[in-house]
Amino acid sequence: MRASRPAVHPVEAPPPAPAAAAQALGEGEGAAHPRGVRMKDPPGAPGTPAGLGLRLAQAFFAAAALAVMASTNDFPSVSAFSYLVAAAILQCLWSLLLAFVDIYALLVKRSLRNARAVCIFTIGDGITGTLTLGAACASAGITVLIGNDLNICAENHCASFETATAMAFISWFALAPSCILNFWSMASR
Amino acid sequence: MRASRPAVHPVEAPPPAPAAAAQALGEGEGAAHPRGVRMKDPPGAPGTPAGLGLRLAQAFFAAAALAVMASTNDFPSVSAFSYLVAAAILQCLWSLLLAFVDIYALLVKRSLRNARAVCIFTIGDGITGTLTLGAACASAGITVLIGNDLNICAENHCASFETATAMAFISWFALAPSCILNFWSMASR
Repeated sequence: MRASRPAVHPVEAPPPAPAAAAQALGEGEGAAHPRGVRMKDPPGAPGTPAGLGLRLAQAFFAAAALAVMASTNDFPSVSAFSYLVAAAILQCLWSLLLAFVDIYALLVKRSLRNARAVCIFTIGDGITGTLTLGAACASAGITVLIGNDLNICAENHCASFETATAMAFISWFALAPSCILNFWSMASR
Repeated sequence: MRASRPAVHPVEAPPPAPAAAAQALGEGEGAAHPRGVRMKDPPGAPGTPAGLGLRLAQAFFAAAALAVMASTNDFPSVSAFSYLVAAAILQCLWSLLLAFVDIYALLVKRSLRNARAVCIFTIGDGITGTLTLGAACASAGITVLIGNDLNICAENHCASFETATAMAFISWFALAPSCILNFWSMASR
């Protein structure tokens, strides 16, 4: 009797192996996740809360640069300041657009790791980032010329110019991680 | 006699199949090429003649910007022009250093697709590129201020400032492909 006794203790069924099941789909690298559904994006990538935060920060600081610069009445007399206003408008619109895309992706819980979308995001980020950095540097050059080299701050709105330039730089610093992450995910697919 | 006659025509020995031999090493993706030896780099990547040409172009235009700006006697009075000189020196040194690395790689026919080397190249390119673009934009802002907004070119070296700024921009345009290619090959490994 002892030799033929079967196991009577309840044995837990092993949990189903989702990875193995998904492997059976045979989709290569993307096999563990069905196509189009949220994958494990790095924080800051489009379609993640951190990515949305970066976009909102870009748009906010670009709008701040625009508002502060436009609040001075003599910015159109300097080409670089007009260029900063134009670049800030473009940066603000682009970041707001991508923020809405991110909000949509978060609401419907879809991944934005689409090859064409990432390519468009990367090129747009690269262009707006270059323009914003150029505008910020041009404004910084003129602000330093007015404030430190010529010392004519008394008759100019140095504080506003410096604040707008700083806001544009901060907007660019918020844009750089988005651009690098997009380029990385475009190249590593 | 006819039946047993061996082949008397000289038969060329088939060329050895290097790919098959290398496959036997079983090194996965890099199996077709022994490690460290020249792989099929994209044109413009480090260690290729196009990459060397880009580096030399960067160094040449940075040196031209430096020489033209330093030939004016009043550039130290404007911070942005001093910054352009500093950025051009850094750009020139960095590009010359990488040009020597490229020449070495071409002479000994070694590939530079080493993970750590590509990472260092990318970070260095990114930093020098940002500094050069910033310096060029700052100089451009001040050059436009002097020439178009204030119309005081008569008492300034506007032509020299404009030439130096243009050279710095061209140097940055030559740097951008190197940086993008390095980042791409870093991300896609």
